[in-house]
Amino acid sequence: MRELAGRRDLIGVNTATLGHREPLEVVARRVAAAGFGWITPWRHEVDEDHPERAAAALRAAGLRAGGYCRTVYLSGADAAQRRAAVEANRRALEAAAVLGAPFLVAVVGGLPEGATDLAGCRAQVLEGLAALQPTAQATGVRLALEPLHPVYATDRSVLNTVAQAVDWCEQLDPGAQGWVGIAVDAYHAWWDPALETSIARAGRRIVALHVCDWLRQTRDPLQDRGMMGDGVIDLRRLRYCVEAAGFDGPVEVEIFSRLDWWQREPDGVLRTCRERLWSVC
Amino acid sequence: MRELAGRRDLIGVNTATLGHREPLEVVARRVAAAGFGWITPWRHEVDEDHPERAAAALRAAGLRAGGYCRTVYLSGADAAQRRAAVEANRRALEAAAVLGAPFLVAVVGGLPEGATDLAGCRAQVLEGLAALQPTAQATGVRLALEPLHPVYATDRSVLNTVAQAVDWCEQLDPGAQGWVGIAVDAYHAWWDPALETSIARAGRRIVALHVCDWLRQTRDPLQDRGMMGDGVIDLRRLRYCVEAAGFDGPVEVEIFSRLDWWQREPDGVLRTCRERLWSVC
Repeated sequence: MRELAGRRDLIGVNTATLGHREPLEVVARRVAAAGFGWITPWRHEVDEDHPERAAAALRAAGLRAGGYCRTVYLSGADAAQRRAAVEANRRALEAAAVLGAPFLVAVVGGLPEGATDLAGCRAQVLEGLAALQPTAQATGVRLALEPLHPVYATDRSVLNTVAQAVDWCEQLDPGAQGWVGIAVDAYHAWWDPALETSIARAGRRIVALHVCDWLRQTRDPLQDRGMMGDGVIDLRRLRYCVEAAGFDGPVEVEIFSRLDWWQREPDGVLRTCRERLWSVC
Repeated sequence: MRELAGRRDLIGVNTATLGHREPLEVVARRVAAAGFGWITPWRHEVDEDHPERAAAALRAAGLRAGGYCRTVYLSGADAAQRRAAVEANRRALEAAAVLGAPFLVAVVGGLPEGATDLAGCRAQVLEGLAALQPTAQATGVRLALEPLHPVYATDRSVLNTVAQAVDWCEQLDPGAQGWVGIAVDAYHAWWDPALETSIARAGRRIVALHVCDWLRQTRDPLQDRGMMGDGVIDLRRLRYCVEAAGFDGPVEVEIFSRLDWWQREPDGVLRTCRERLWSVC
Protein backbone atom coordinates (compact mmCIF):
# COMPACT_ATOMS: atom_id res chain seq x y z
CA MET A 1 0.00 0.00 0.00
CA ARG A 2 1.32 3.41 -0.89
CA GLU A 3 2.33 5.95 1.76
CA LEU A 4 0.40 9.16 1.10
CA ALA A 5 2.12 11.45 3.61
CA GLY A 6 4.23 14.08 1.93
CA ARG A 7 3.25 12.90 -1.56
CA ARG A 8 1.41 15.70 -3.35
CA ASP A 9 1.52 13.56 -6.49
CA LEU A 10 -0.82 11.03 -4.82
CA ILE A 11 -3.57 13.30 -3.49
CA GLY A 12 -6.16 15.49 -5.14
CA VAL A 13 -9.21 17.58 -4.40
CA ASN A 14 -12.51 17.77 -6.16
CA THR A 15 -13.55 21.41 -6.21
CA ALA A 16 -17.02 20.49 -4.90
CA THR A 17 -15.30 19.98 -1.54
CA LEU A 18 -15.05 23.75 -1.13
CA GLY A 19 -18.65 24.37 -2.15
CA HIS A 20 -17.98 26.22 -5.41
CA ARG A 21 -17.73 29.55 -3.63
CA GLU A 22 -14.74 30.98 -5.50
CA PRO A 23 -13.45 31.06 -9.10
CA LEU A 24 -11.40 28.09 -10.24
CA GLU A 25 -8.10 29.99 -10.33
CA VAL A 26 -8.51 30.98 -6.67
CA VAL A 27 -9.46 27.46 -5.65
CA ALA A 28 -6.51 26.06 -7.60
CA ARG A 29 -4.05 28.29 -5.77
CA ARG A 30 -5.48 27.22 -2.40
CA VAL A 31 -5.40 23.53 -3.35
CA ALA A 32 -1.78 23.72 -4.48
CA ALA A 33 -0.76 25.68 -1.37
CA ALA A 34 -2.35 23.01 0.83
CA GLY A 35 -0.07 20.34 -0.62
CA PHE A 36 -2.22 18.67 -3.26
CA GLY A 37 -0.96 17.89 -6.74
CA TRP A 38 -4.29 17.27 -8.45
CA ILE A 39 -7.58 19.07 -8.86
CA THR A 40 -10.86 17.92 -10.40
CA PRO A 41 -12.98 20.84 -11.58
CA TRP A 42 -16.63 20.97 -12.61
CA ARG A 43 -17.98 22.07 -15.96
CA HIS A 44 -19.71 25.16 -14.59
CA GLU A 45 -16.32 26.43 -13.38
CA VAL A 46 -14.80 26.17 -16.84
CA ASP A 47 -15.58 28.35 -19.85
CA GLU A 48 -15.93 25.52 -22.36
CA ASP A 49 -15.61 27.93 -25.27
CA HIS A 50 -12.09 28.61 -24.01
CA PRO A 51 -11.06 25.67 -21.83
CA GLU A 52 -7.41 26.56 -22.41
CA ARG A 53 -7.91 29.41 -19.93
CA ALA A 54 -8.84 26.99 -17.13
CA ALA A 55 -6.01 24.72 -18.23
CA ALA A 56 -3.59 27.63 -17.91
CA ALA A 57 -4.93 28.48 -14.44
CA LEU A 58 -4.32 24.93 -13.24
CA ARG A 59 -0.82 24.91 -14.73
CA ALA A 60 -0.03 28.29 -13.19
CA ALA A 61 -0.96 26.85 -9.80
CA GLY A 62 1.27 23.84 -10.39
CA LEU A 63 -1.63 21.41 -10.52
CA ARG A 64 -2.75 18.69 -12.90
CA ALA A 65 -6.39 17.94 -13.70
CA GLY A 66 -7.27 14.73 -11.90
CA GLY A 67 -10.53 14.39 -13.81
CA TYR A 68 -13.45 16.47 -15.03
CA CYS A 69 -16.97 16.55 -13.53
CA ARG A 70 -19.26 15.47 -15.12
CA THR A 71 -21.57 14.14 -17.81
CA VAL A 72 -25.09 15.44 -18.12
CA TYR A 73 -27.62 12.69 -17.47
CA LEU A 74 -27.97 10.17 -20.27
CA SER A 75 -31.35 8.86 -19.12
CA GLY A 76 -33.57 11.38 -20.87
CA ALA A 77 -37.29 10.79 -21.21
CA ASP A 78 -37.22 10.66 -25.02
CA ALA A 79 -34.77 10.02 -27.85
CA ALA A 80 -34.26 13.73 -28.57
CA GLN A 81 -33.29 14.42 -24.97
CA ARG A 82 -30.92 11.47 -24.98
CA ARG A 83 -29.28 12.63 -28.22
CA ALA A 84 -28.83 16.12 -26.78
CA ALA A 85 -27.18 14.60 -23.72
CA VAL A 86 -24.74 12.67 -25.88
CA GLU A 87 -23.87 15.89 -27.74
CA ALA A 88 -23.30 17.79 -24.50
CA ASN A 89 -21.10 14.99 -23.22
CA ARG A 90 -19.03 15.03 -26.40
CA ARG A 91 -18.27 18.69 -25.76
CA ALA A 92 -17.33 17.84 -22.18
CA LEU A 93 -14.89 15.18 -23.38
CA GLU A 94 -13.30 17.72 -25.70
CA ALA A 95 -12.95 20.28 -22.92
CA ALA A 96 -11.53 17.59 -20.62
CA ALA A 97 -8.88 16.89 -23.22
CA VAL A 98 -7.82 20.54 -23.28
CA LEU A 99 -7.65 20.51 -19.48
CA GLY A 100 -5.43 17.44 -19.67
CA ALA A 101 -7.89 15.46 -17.55
CA PRO A 102 -7.49 11.71 -17.96
CA PHE A 103 -11.22 11.09 -17.60
CA LEU A 104 -14.68 12.59 -17.57
CA VAL A 105 -16.77 11.38 -14.62
CA ALA A 106 -19.97 9.77 -15.88
CA VAL A 107 -22.99 10.19 -13.63
CA VAL A 108 -25.62 8.60 -15.79
CA GLY A 109 -28.95 9.90 -14.51
CA GLY A 110 -31.94 8.36 -12.74
CA LEU A 111 -35.31 7.10 -13.91
CA PRO A 112 -37.05 9.70 -16.06
CA GLU A 113 -40.23 11.30 -14.70
CA GLY A 114 -43.12 8.85 -14.86
CA ALA A 115 -40.94 5.86 -15.77
CA THR A 116 -40.89 2.54 -13.93
CA ASP A 117 -38.92 0.48 -16.45
CA LEU A 118 -35.57 0.42 -14.71
CA ALA A 119 -34.04 -2.24 -16.95
CA GLY A 120 -35.14 -0.32 -20.04
CA CYS A 121 -33.69 2.90 -18.67
CA ARG A 122 -30.40 1.17 -17.97
CA ALA A 123 -30.29 -0.15 -21.53
CA GLN A 124 -30.87 3.37 -22.89
CA VAL A 125 -28.08 4.75 -20.74
CA LEU A 126 -25.75 2.08 -22.09
CA GLU A 127 -26.65 3.16 -25.64
CA GLY A 128 -25.80 6.76 -24.76
CA LEU A 129 -22.46 5.73 -23.31
CA ALA A 130 -21.69 3.63 -26.37
CA ALA A 131 -22.34 6.66 -28.57
CA LEU A 132 -19.52 8.47 -26.78
CA GLN A 133 -16.89 5.90 -27.72
CA PRO A 134 -15.57 7.67 -30.85
CA THR A 135 -15.11 10.97 -29.01
CA ALA A 136 -13.54 9.30 -25.99
CA GLN A 137 -11.08 7.51 -28.23
CA ALA A 138 -10.36 10.55 -30.40
CA THR A 139 -9.71 12.78 -27.39
CA GLY A 140 -7.96 10.13 -25.29
CA VAL A 141 -10.24 11.05 -22.38
CA ARG A 142 -11.79 8.06 -20.66
CA LEU A 143 -15.33 7.88 -19.41
CA ALA A 144 -15.19 7.06 -15.70
CA LEU A 145 -18.46 5.31 -14.85
CA GLU A 146 -19.35 6.26 -11.30
CA PRO A 147 -21.85 4.00 -9.54
CA LEU A 148 -23.95 6.11 -7.20
CA HIS A 149 -25.53 4.99 -3.94
CA PRO A 150 -28.88 3.22 -4.46
CA VAL A 151 -30.63 6.05 -2.63
CA TYR A 152 -30.11 8.08 -5.84
CA ALA A 153 -31.53 5.50 -8.26
CA THR A 154 -34.62 7.58 -8.94
CA ASP A 155 -33.15 11.01 -9.40
CA ARG A 156 -29.43 10.76 -10.22
CA SER A 157 -28.13 7.38 -11.32
CA VAL A 158 -29.42 4.00 -12.39
CA LEU A 159 -25.82 2.78 -12.13
CA ASN A 160 -25.61 1.71 -8.50
CA THR A 161 -22.89 -0.85 -7.77
CA VAL A 162 -19.30 -1.48 -8.75
CA ALA A 163 -20.33 -4.93 -10.02
CA GLN A 164 -22.79 -3.28 -12.38
CA ALA A 165 -20.11 -0.84 -13.54
CA VAL A 166 -17.80 -3.77 -14.32
CA ASP A 167 -20.61 -5.44 -16.29
CA TRP A 168 -21.14 -2.23 -18.23
CA CYS A 169 -17.41 -1.86 -18.96
CA GLU A 170 -17.36 -5.40 -20.30
CA GLN A 171 -20.33 -4.70 -22.54
CA LEU A 172 -19.10 -1.33 -23.76
CA ASP A 173 -15.45 -2.21 -24.15
CA PRO A 174 -15.15 -5.97 -24.50
CA GLY A 175 -11.61 -5.72 -25.84
CA ALA A 176 -10.54 -3.61 -22.84
CA GLN A 177 -9.23 -0.83 -25.04
CA GLY A 178 -9.69 1.35 -22.01
CA TRP A 179 -12.03 4.13 -23.18
CA VAL A 180 -14.32 3.41 -20.21
CA GLY A 181 -13.23 2.95 -16.63
CA ILE A 182 -14.75 3.09 -13.16
CA ALA A 183 -14.72 5.76 -10.46
CA VAL A 184 -15.07 4.14 -7.04
CA ASP A 185 -16.47 6.57 -4.49
CA ALA A 186 -16.36 5.47 -0.86
CA TYR A 187 -19.63 7.22 -0.05
CA HIS A 188 -21.55 5.40 -2.74
CA ALA A 189 -19.99 1.96 -2.39
CA TRP A 190 -18.95 1.33 1.22
CA TRP A 191 -22.10 -0.61 2.24
CA ASP A 192 -21.89 -3.15 -0.60
CA PRO A 193 -21.35 -6.76 0.55
CA ALA A 194 -19.92 -7.51 -2.91
CA LEU A 195 -17.61 -4.49 -2.92
CA GLU A 196 -14.28 -6.25 -2.47
CA THR A 197 -14.96 -8.97 -5.01
CA SER A 198 -16.26 -6.35 -7.44
CA ILE A 199 -13.14 -4.22 -7.02
CA ALA A 200 -10.97 -7.27 -7.68
CA ARG A 201 -13.02 -7.96 -10.80
CA ALA A 202 -12.71 -4.34 -11.90
CA GLY A 203 -8.93 -4.47 -11.61
CA ARG A 204 -7.22 -1.77 -13.62
CA ARG A 205 -10.56 -0.55 -14.97
CA ILE A 206 -10.63 1.55 -11.78
CA VAL A 207 -9.44 5.01 -12.75
CA ALA A 208 -10.49 7.04 -9.71
CA LEU A 209 -10.87 6.67 -5.96
CA HIS A 210 -13.02 9.30 -4.26
CA VAL A 211 -13.02 9.58 -0.50
CA CYS A 212 -15.16 11.25 2.16
CA ASP A 213 -17.15 9.59 4.93
CA TRP A 214 -20.71 8.47 5.67
CA LEU A 215 -21.88 10.14 8.85
CA ARG A 216 -23.78 8.09 11.39
CA GLN A 217 -26.40 10.84 11.63
CA THR A 218 -26.83 11.79 7.98
CA ARG A 219 -29.20 14.75 7.77
CA ASP A 220 -29.34 14.91 3.98
CA PRO A 221 -28.26 11.98 1.78
CA LEU A 222 -27.03 14.39 -0.90
CA GLN A 223 -25.14 17.18 0.83
CA ASP A 224 -24.24 15.99 4.31
CA ARG A 225 -21.16 13.91 3.58
CA GLY A 226 -18.55 13.68 6.28
CA MET A 227 -14.82 14.38 6.45
CA MET A 228 -12.71 11.24 6.28
CA GLY A 229 -12.49 9.75 9.77
CA ASP A 230 -15.74 11.30 11.02
CA GLY A 231 -18.00 8.49 9.84
CA VAL A 232 -18.37 4.74 9.47
CA ILE A 233 -16.29 3.89 6.39
CA ASP A 234 -13.08 1.89 6.68
CA LEU A 235 -11.27 4.04 4.13
CA ARG A 236 -7.88 2.44 4.55
CA ARG A 237 -9.33 -0.96 3.80
CA LEU A 238 -11.02 0.43 0.70
CA ARG A 239 -7.81 2.03 -0.55
CA TYR A 240 -5.95 -1.20 0.14
CA CYS A 241 -8.40 -3.15 -2.03
CA VAL A 242 -8.41 -0.61 -4.86
CA GLU A 243 -4.61 -0.45 -4.94
CA ALA A 244 -4.35 -4.24 -4.74
CA ALA A 245 -6.54 -4.32 -7.85
CA GLY A 246 -3.98 -2.17 -9.67
CA PHE A 247 -5.08 1.41 -9.14
CA ASP A 248 -2.12 3.79 -9.02
CA GLY A 249 -3.73 7.21 -9.46
CA PRO A 250 -4.23 9.96 -6.91
CA VAL A 251 -6.76 9.67 -4.08
CA GLU A 252 -9.35 12.40 -4.52
CA VAL A 253 -11.31 14.09 -1.74
CA GLU A 254 -14.90 14.89 -2.69
CA ILE A 255 -17.13 16.16 0.12
CA PHE A 256 -20.60 17.57 -0.49
CA SER A 257 -21.37 19.27 2.78
CA ARG A 258 -23.75 22.16 2.56
CA LEU A 259 -24.43 21.84 6.28
CA ASP A 260 -20.87 21.86 7.55
CA TRP A 261 -17.65 22.00 5.49
CA TRP A 262 -18.99 24.38 2.85
CA GLN A 263 -19.58 26.87 5.66
CA ARG A 264 -15.95 26.78 6.76
CA GLU A 265 -12.87 28.74 5.75
CA PRO A 266 -11.40 27.02 2.64
CA ASP A 267 -7.74 26.78 3.64
CA GLY A 268 -8.67 25.13 6.94
CA VAL A 269 -10.89 22.64 5.11
CA LEU A 270 -8.05 21.74 2.75
CA ARG A 271 -5.60 21.36 5.64
CA THR A 272 -8.02 18.97 7.37
CA CYS A 273 -8.49 17.03 4.12
CA ARG A 274 -4.76 16.56 3.76
CA GLU A 275 -4.27 15.54 7.40
CA ARG A 276 -7.09 13.02 7.23
CA LEU A 277 -5.79 11.60 3.95
CA TRP A 278 -2.52 10.98 5.74
CA SER A 279 -4.00 9.67 8.99
CA VAL A 280 -7.12 7.65 8.13
CA CYS A 281 -7.13 6.88 4.39
CA MET B 1 -48.79 -15.28 -12.32
CA ARG B 2 -51.58 -15.43 -9.80
CA GLU B 3 -54.69 -13.26 -10.05
CA LEU B 4 -55.03 -11.35 -6.77
CA ALA B 5 -58.45 -9.76 -7.33
CA GLY B 6 -61.07 -11.22 -5.05
CA ARG B 7 -58.56 -13.52 -3.35
CA ARG B 8 -58.37 -12.62 0.35
CA ASP B 9 -56.20 -15.68 0.85
CA LEU B 10 -53.46 -14.04 -1.27
CA ILE B 11 -53.23 -10.57 0.30
CA GLY B 12 -52.17 -9.34 3.70
CA VAL B 13 -51.44 -6.17 5.63
CA ASN B 14 -48.58 -5.33 7.93
CA THR B 15 -50.05 -3.37 10.83
CA ALA B 16 -47.34 -0.68 10.41
CA THR B 17 -49.33 0.42 7.35
CA LEU B 18 -51.93 1.97 9.65
CA GLY B 19 -49.35 3.69 11.87
CA HIS B 20 -49.97 1.68 15.05
CA ARG B 21 -52.72 4.04 16.14
CA GLU B 22 -55.22 1.45 17.43
CA PRO B 23 -55.09 -1.81 19.39
CA LEU B 24 -54.45 -4.99 17.42
CA GLU B 25 -57.98 -6.33 17.77
CA VAL B 26 -59.43 -3.14 16.25
CA VAL B 27 -56.89 -3.18 13.41
CA ALA B 28 -57.59 -6.86 12.79
CA ARG B 29 -61.31 -6.23 12.39
CA ARG B 30 -60.66 -3.41 9.93
CA VAL B 31 -58.18 -5.51 7.93
CA ALA B 32 -60.60 -8.43 7.67
CA ALA B 33 -63.48 -6.14 6.72
CA ALA B 34 -61.37 -4.64 3.93
CA GLY B 35 -60.96 -8.03 2.29
CA PHE B 36 -57.58 -9.22 3.49
CA GLY B 37 -56.95 -12.71 4.79
CA TRP B 38 -53.60 -12.12 6.50
CA ILE B 39 -52.17 -9.72 9.05
CA THR B 40 -48.59 -9.25 10.25
CA PRO B 41 -48.45 -7.68 13.71
CA TRP B 42 -45.53 -6.13 15.58
CA ARG B 43 -44.21 -7.27 18.94
CA HIS B 44 -45.22 -4.09 20.75
CA GLU B 45 -48.85 -4.81 19.80
CA VAL B 46 -48.76 -8.26 21.40
CA ASP B 47 -48.59 -9.09 25.10
CA GLU B 48 -45.85 -11.71 24.84
CA ASP B 49 -46.65 -13.02 28.31
CA HIS B 50 -50.04 -14.00 26.87
CA PRO B 51 -49.66 -14.20 23.10
CA GLU B 52 -52.69 -16.50 22.97
CA ARG B 53 -54.82 -13.38 23.50
CA ALA B 54 -53.53 -11.76 20.31
CA ALA B 55 -53.88 -15.11 18.54
CA ALA B 56 -57.54 -15.26 19.63
CA ALA B 57 -58.13 -11.70 18.40
CA LEU B 58 -56.79 -12.55 14.95
CA ARG B 59 -58.86 -15.73 14.81
CA ALA B 60 -61.98 -13.87 15.93
CA ALA B 61 -61.47 -11.47 13.03
CA GLY B 62 -61.08 -14.37 10.62
CA LEU B 63 -57.44 -13.62 9.91
CA ARG B 64 -54.23 -15.62 9.89
CA ALA B 65 -50.87 -14.26 11.01
CA GLY B 66 -48.81 -13.67 7.87
CA GLY B 67 -45.64 -13.15 9.87
CA TYR B 68 -44.39 -11.45 13.01
CA CYS B 69 -42.32 -8.24 13.20
CA ARG B 70 -39.49 -8.36 14.15
CA THR B 71 -36.17 -9.37 15.71
CA VAL B 72 -34.28 -6.94 17.91
CA TYR B 73 -30.96 -5.98 16.35
CA LEU B 74 -28.30 -8.68 16.51
CA SER B 75 -25.38 -6.31 15.90
CA GLY B 76 -24.77 -5.26 19.50
CA ALA B 77 -21.57 -3.44 20.45
CA ASP B 78 -20.37 -6.21 22.78
CA ALA B 79 -20.90 -9.92 23.42
CA ALA B 80 -23.31 -9.35 26.32
CA GLN B 81 -25.55 -7.15 24.17
CA ARG B 82 -25.49 -9.68 21.38
CA ARG B 83 -26.40 -12.53 23.76
CA ALA B 84 -29.29 -10.48 25.14
CA ALA B 85 -30.51 -9.91 21.58
CA VAL B 86 -30.47 -13.64 20.88
CA GLU B 87 -32.50 -14.25 24.06
CA ALA B 88 -35.05 -11.61 23.11
CA ASN B 89 -35.37 -13.09 19.65
CA ARG B 90 -35.93 -16.58 21.08
CA ARG B 91 -38.91 -15.20 23.00
CA ALA B 92 -40.18 -13.59 19.80
CA LEU B 93 -39.98 -16.91 17.96
CA GLU B 94 -41.99 -18.56 20.74
CA ALA B 95 -44.64 -15.84 20.63
CA ALA B 96 -44.76 -16.12 16.83
CA ALA B 97 -45.46 -19.82 17.19
CA VAL B 98 -48.45 -19.13 19.44
CA LEU B 99 -49.73 -16.58 16.92
CA GLY B 100 -49.42 -19.20 14.20
CA ALA B 101 -47.06 -16.98 12.23
CA PRO B 102 -44.95 -18.92 9.73
CA PHE B 103 -41.95 -16.63 10.23
CA LEU B 104 -40.34 -13.94 12.34
CA VAL B 105 -38.98 -11.07 10.23
CA ALA B 106 -35.27 -10.62 10.92
CA VAL B 107 -34.02 -7.04 10.70
CA VAL B 108 -30.46 -7.57 11.80
CA GLY B 109 -29.20 -4.15 12.91
CA GLY B 110 -26.62 -1.68 11.62
CA LEU B 111 -23.01 -0.92 12.53
CA PRO B 112 -22.66 -0.39 16.28
CA GLU B 113 -21.73 3.12 17.50
CA GLY B 114 -18.08 3.84 16.80
CA ALA B 115 -17.56 0.76 14.61
CA THR B 116 -16.17 0.77 11.08
CA ASP B 117 -15.59 -2.97 10.66
CA LEU B 118 -18.53 -3.81 8.45
CA ALA B 119 -17.34 -7.31 7.57
CA GLY B 120 -16.74 -8.09 11.25
CA CYS B 121 -20.19 -6.81 12.17
CA ARG B 122 -21.76 -8.96 9.49
CA ALA B 123 -19.94 -12.02 10.84
CA GLN B 124 -21.24 -11.31 14.35
CA VAL B 125 -24.79 -10.97 13.07
CA LEU B 126 -24.45 -14.35 11.35
CA GLU B 127 -23.37 -15.87 14.66
CA GLY B 128 -26.43 -14.43 16.35
CA LEU B 129 -28.71 -15.81 13.65
CA ALA B 130 -27.05 -19.23 13.93
CA ALA B 131 -27.75 -19.23 17.67
CA LEU B 132 -31.46 -19.02 16.90
CA GLN B 133 -31.54 -22.22 14.88
CA PRO B 134 -32.62 -24.56 17.72
CA THR B 135 -35.53 -22.31 18.71
CA ALA B 136 -36.58 -21.78 15.12
CA GLN B 137 -36.62 -25.51 14.54
CA ALA B 138 -38.32 -26.33 17.84
CA THR B 139 -41.09 -23.78 17.26
CA GLY B 140 -41.39 -24.37 13.52
CA VAL B 141 -41.18 -20.59 12.99
CA ARG B 142 -38.75 -19.56 10.27
CA LEU B 143 -36.44 -16.59 10.44
CA ALA B 144 -37.18 -14.42 7.43
CA LEU B 145 -33.99 -12.48 6.66
CA GLU B 146 -35.00 -9.11 5.33
CA PRO B 147 -32.34 -7.20 3.37
CA LEU B 148 -32.80 -3.50 3.99
CA HIS B 149 -31.98 -0.67 1.58
CA PRO B 150 -28.29 0.32 1.72
CA VAL B 151 -29.29 3.74 3.06
CA TYR B 152 -29.91 1.93 6.39
CA ALA B 153 -26.55 0.13 6.59
CA THR B 154 -25.35 2.32 9.44
CA ASP B 155 -28.37 2.39 11.68
CA ARG B 156 -30.69 -0.53 10.88
CA SER B 157 -29.25 -3.36 8.83
CA VAL B 158 -25.92 -4.60 7.57
CA LEU B 159 -27.89 -7.06 5.42
CA ASN B 160 -28.52 -5.06 2.27
CA THR B 161 -29.17 -7.16 -0.83
CA VAL B 162 -31.11 -10.26 -1.76
CA ALA B 163 -27.86 -11.82 -3.03
CA GLN B 164 -26.34 -11.35 0.41
CA ALA B 165 -29.42 -12.89 2.03
CA VAL B 166 -29.09 -15.94 -0.22
CA ASP B 167 -25.42 -16.24 0.75
CA TRP B 168 -26.40 -16.07 4.41
CA CYS B 169 -29.11 -18.70 3.98
CA GLU B 170 -26.58 -21.01 2.35
CA GLN B 171 -24.14 -20.51 5.21
CA LEU B 172 -26.74 -20.83 7.98
CA ASP B 173 -28.74 -23.66 6.48
CA PRO B 174 -26.58 -25.50 3.98
CA GLY B 175 -28.90 -28.49 3.91
CA ALA B 176 -31.90 -26.24 3.13
CA GLN B 177 -33.87 -27.53 6.09
CA GLY B 178 -35.78 -24.31 5.80
CA TRP B 179 -35.41 -22.66 9.21
CA VAL B 180 -34.20 -19.47 7.51
CA GLY B 181 -35.82 -17.79 4.54
CA ILE B 182 -35.86 -14.39 2.88
CA ALA B 183 -38.34 -11.53 2.99
CA VAL B 184 -38.15 -9.52 -0.23
CA ASP B 185 -39.39 -5.96 0.26
CA ALA B 186 -39.92 -3.91 -2.89
CA TYR B 187 -38.85 -0.69 -1.18
CA HIS B 188 -35.50 -2.11 -0.13
CA ALA B 189 -34.66 -4.10 -3.23
CA TRP B 190 -36.15 -2.44 -6.32
CA TRP B 191 -32.98 -0.55 -7.37
CA ASP B 192 -30.72 -3.61 -7.37
CA PRO B 193 -29.26 -4.48 -10.79
CA ALA B 194 -28.77 -8.06 -9.53
CA LEU B 195 -32.31 -8.35 -8.14
CA GLU B 196 -33.81 -10.71 -10.69
CA THR B 197 -30.87 -13.09 -10.74
CA SER B 198 -30.77 -13.02 -6.95
CA ILE B 199 -34.48 -13.82 -6.69
CA ALA B 200 -34.01 -16.74 -9.06
CA ARG B 201 -31.12 -17.95 -6.91
CA ALA B 202 -33.22 -17.53 -3.76
CA GLY B 203 -35.98 -19.68 -5.21
CA ARG B 204 -38.27 -21.12 -2.57
CA ARG B 205 -36.16 -19.56 0.19
CA ILE B 206 -38.36 -16.50 -0.37
CA VAL B 207 -41.04 -16.60 2.30
CA ALA B 208 -42.45 -13.09 2.09
CA LEU B 209 -43.10 -10.37 -0.47
CA HIS B 210 -43.65 -6.88 0.95
CA VAL B 211 -44.98 -4.15 -1.29
CA CYS B 212 -45.26 -0.37 -1.17
CA ASP B 213 -43.63 2.17 -3.50
CA TRP B 214 -40.57 4.44 -3.67
CA LEU B 215 -41.73 8.00 -4.18
CA ARG B 216 -39.87 10.16 -6.66
CA GLN B 217 -39.71 12.94 -4.08
CA THR B 218 -38.85 11.02 -0.94
CA ARG B 219 -38.85 13.42 2.00
CA ASP B 220 -37.69 10.91 4.61
CA PRO B 221 -36.01 7.61 3.64
CA LEU B 222 -37.55 5.89 6.68
CA GLN B 223 -41.16 7.01 6.92
CA ASP B 224 -42.16 8.44 3.58
CA ARG B 225 -42.92 5.29 1.63
CA GLY B 226 -45.52 5.50 -1.07
CA MET B 227 -48.72 3.61 -1.85
CA MET B 228 -48.31 1.03 -4.58
CA GLY B 229 -48.63 2.79 -7.94
CA ASP B 230 -47.59 6.22 -6.66
CA GLY B 231 -43.85 5.71 -7.18
CA VAL B 232 -41.19 4.26 -9.42
CA ILE B 233 -41.26 0.53 -8.69
CA ASP B 234 -42.46 -1.97 -11.27
CA LEU B 235 -44.30 -4.05 -8.68
CA ARG B 236 -45.94 -6.41 -11.12
CA ARG B 237 -42.59 -7.35 -12.58
CA LEU B 238 -41.24 -7.94 -9.07
CA ARG B 239 -44.17 -10.18 -8.15
CA TYR B 240 -43.79 -12.03 -11.42
CA CYS B 241 -40.14 -12.80 -10.62
CA VAL B 242 -40.81 -13.83 -7.02
CA GLU B 243 -43.66 -16.13 -8.05
CA ALA B 244 -41.60 -17.56 -10.89
CA ALA B 245 -39.00 -18.45 -8.26
CA GLY B 246 -41.61 -20.48 -6.38
CA PHE B 247 -43.16 -18.08 -3.89
CA ASP B 248 -46.81 -18.90 -3.22
CA GLY B 249 -47.57 -16.94 -0.05
CA PRO B 250 -49.67 -13.81 0.39
CA VAL B 251 -48.50 -10.41 -0.86
CA GLU B 252 -48.14 -8.12 2.15
CA VAL B 253 -48.60 -4.36 2.14
CA GLU B 254 -46.17 -2.54 4.42
CA ILE B 255 -46.18 1.25 4.19
CA PHE B 256 -44.31 3.46 6.64
CA SER B 257 -45.79 6.87 5.95
CA ARG B 258 -45.72 9.26 8.86
CA LEU B 259 -46.20 12.15 6.46
CA ASP B 260 -49.21 10.89 4.55
CA TRP B 261 -50.99 7.55 4.96
CA TRP B 262 -50.67 7.40 8.75
CA GLN B 263 -52.60 10.66 8.86
CA ARG B 264 -55.55 9.19 6.97
CA GLU B 265 -58.68 7.35 8.02
CA PRO B 266 -57.75 3.63 8.38
CA ASP B 267 -60.60 2.02 6.42
CA GLY B 268 -59.92 4.28 3.44
CA VAL B 269 -56.22 3.40 3.57
CA LEU B 270 -57.03 -0.31 3.57
CA ARG B 271 -59.46 0.10 0.69
CA THR B 272 -56.77 1.85 -1.35
CA CYS B 273 -54.26 -0.85 -0.47
CA ARG B 274 -56.59 -3.56 -1.71
CA GLU B 275 -57.45 -1.69 -4.91
CA ARG B 276 -53.81 -1.04 -5.70
CA LEU B 277 -52.88 -4.66 -5.00
CA TRP B 278 -55.45 -5.62 -7.59
CA SER B 279 -54.56 -2.96 -10.14
CA VAL B 280 -50.79 -2.42 -10.04
CA CYS B 281 -49.17 -5.32 -8.14
